[in-house]
Amino acid sequence: MTVSEYRRDPVTGRWVVIGTEPPRPADFDREPVRLAPDPQCPLCEGHEAMTPPELWVDRSSGGPNGPGWHTRVIPNHAPMVRVETVLDRLGEGLFDKIAGVGAHEVVVESPRHEDTLASLDDDGIARVLWALRERTQDLRRDVRFRYFLLFKNHGAVAGAALAHSHTQLMALPVVPREVQVEVDGARAHYVAKERCLFCDIIRQEEDDGRRVIAHTPDMVALAPFASRSPFETWILPRRHAVRFEDASMEQCRGLAQILGDVLRRLDRALEQPPYSLVIHTAPVAEGHDFYHWHVEILPRVTRTGSLEWATGFHLNPTRPEDAAQFLRQLGPRS
Amino acid sequence: MTVSEYRRDPVTGRWVVIGTEPPRPADFDREPVRLAPDPQCPLCEGHEAMTPPELWVDRSSGGPNGPGWHTRVIPNHAPMVRVETVLDRLGEGLFDKIAGVGAHEVVVESPRHEDTLASLDDDGIARVLWALRERTQDLRRDVRFRYFLLFKNHGAVAGAALAHSHTQLMALPVVPREVQVEVDGARAHYVAKERCLFCDIIRQEEDDGRRVIAHTPDMVALAPFASRSPFETWILPRRHAVRFEDASMEQCRGLAQILGDVLRRLDRALEQPPYSLVIHTAPVAEGHDFYHWHVEILPRVTRTGSLEWATGFHLNPTRPEDAAQFLRQLGPRS
Repeated sequence: MTVSEYRRDPVTGRWVVIGTEPPRPADFDREPVRLAPDPQCPLCEGHEAMTPPELWVDRSSGGPNGPGWHTRVIPNHAPMVRVETVLDRLGEGLFDKIAGVGAHEVVVESPRHEDTLASLDDDGIARVLWALRERTQDLRRDVRFRYFLLFKNHGAVAGAALAHSHTQLMALPVVPREVQVEVDGARAHYVAKERCLFCDIIRQEEDDGRRVIAHTPDMVALAPFASRSPFETWILPRRHAVRFEDASMEQCRGLAQILGDVLRRLDRALEQPPYSLVIHTAPVAEGHDFYHWHVEILPRVTRTGSLEWATGFHLNPTRPEDAAQFLRQLGPRS
Repeated sequence: MTVSEYRRDPVTGRWVVIGTEPPRPADFDREPVRLAPDPQCPLCEGHEAMTPPELWVDRSSGGPNGPGWHTRVIPNHAPMVRVETVLDRLGEGLFDKIAGVGAHEVVVESPRHEDTLASLDDDGIARVLWALRERTQDLRRDVRFRYFLLFKNHGAVAGAALAHSHTQLMALPVVPREVQVEVDGARAHYVAKERCLFCDIIRQEEDDGRRVIAHTPDMVALAPFASRSPFETWILPRRHAVRFEDASMEQCRGLAQILGDVLRRLDRALEQPPYSLVIHTAPVAEGHDFYHWHVEILPRVTRTGSLEWATGFHLNPTRPEDAAQFLRQLGPRS
């Protein structure tokens, strides 16, 4: 009998128990994301008046806040943080607090309700990535912001409040703790070795091959060594790059190509799973040149979220080597 | 308009955005935990033959693996870690792994299927706590173990695989990352101030009063300053104590009393919510005298788990001051 093992993520120091069950998606706790038509959807083309005015738009016809767009960025309709708030850092005995300054924006990925990020063509996905890049570049001029959280919740199980496919952007005056843990891990490796930790991981994984899902000349998709959940996938640029928001249009197209490929493989393997996707980019401050931006995709296929949520300790029944092989065999076609 | 704010947890450094919505449980995403009778439940009294033999039992009549017990501890039927495995620490290039040595046990809290931890009387809850303490004391003699994870998932939404009320214990050869972050935060405070961080929090919270839910001569229940989700609750011994598993029977009774009170208040406030409960105790190694054991309860009442899971950044719509006031007003009766 193969024995399960503890694995340590070299970036965050997170320990995960990896089981030895073969990757049988039919055994997972699946709630496929199905899109029902919704004539009242505020994010559909033609319904622009149901949302706040657009902050940014990529359109081929029509005028502001009307039809004819490919990608549209609007403010979150009920943001918990606001740009207008004055940055005010206060102590309260042991405690620290800051008034809720920030930005919370929504990138509508397509004018059509029936699209998902996976169903868009490479050009459509590149437009979404470019919108995120452009909005981040714009918000970066506001010196109050220390981190940009770029993320997508696909499906209600993964926390999506609206069914129409969208990605979110939050600009924050703090660095989230998970990001800080990752930055600290990458810095420690750089101090010890004078090499980027992520570049080292890419090199080792490409030499090994067992956990590689797909690659292109510019990008590689991996099942990480210490995957937290079945079919966790990371996409990294093969050449060292610190911040996603400094990517060129060509690099966004390169990411779009492999991201679409990976999402379609996951859709086929896990039957349209809910997932969360986070673009990990370096904090705004100078001095993060050792960091390497990347994308982390976590399909939600188990309900064992509570232990993980409460303790940071993960039990993953599926070996990433097996998940990667499963996804490789599916091939790139949609 | 009251503005939301960022709050930093003084133990872990976690930032949370706290909203200003009044605590209206009816607005939460609720899936009340309802217990359906199950004649095939392996954890019910009389079905002892359906489980592996008991590791520990608190019984007033009958013989081993038969009826007549109050609390019963059995091995997990499908453990991902096993005591029999040889401890073997291996490197693989950048990566670290350990064979899956460990223990995974289940504390059956009551012989009756219809009980929950909240519905037990103080004596029944104290028996559960005592079982956890006794098993941890026993496993502590195995020098391979570095941490004991004591936790409960209540309800399928919170990850409970069996409906019959139970708590789990895992003995691990590693310290989970969240625990390490907490330990590091408590150590930094101790190094700077020569005082226990948790003792300081208790003193400040009791002076302030707004976030105190309940207290007894020995214990206090708080809504933590940087609560991750609505109605998050911590229970701490008021006198400094490093490890839960060193608690006396009297201290277990003291914890049982306030834990039952808090769980019944949460049941009334949130209509039998699913929740996760973790007993945070110090790692096994010497040199953790600055740590202070406590219980953290996280009701699962929002579906915004993905952002939090993937980034460690939390949005909590409810101020802990409002949640604490809501729970205080309910009073202690069940």
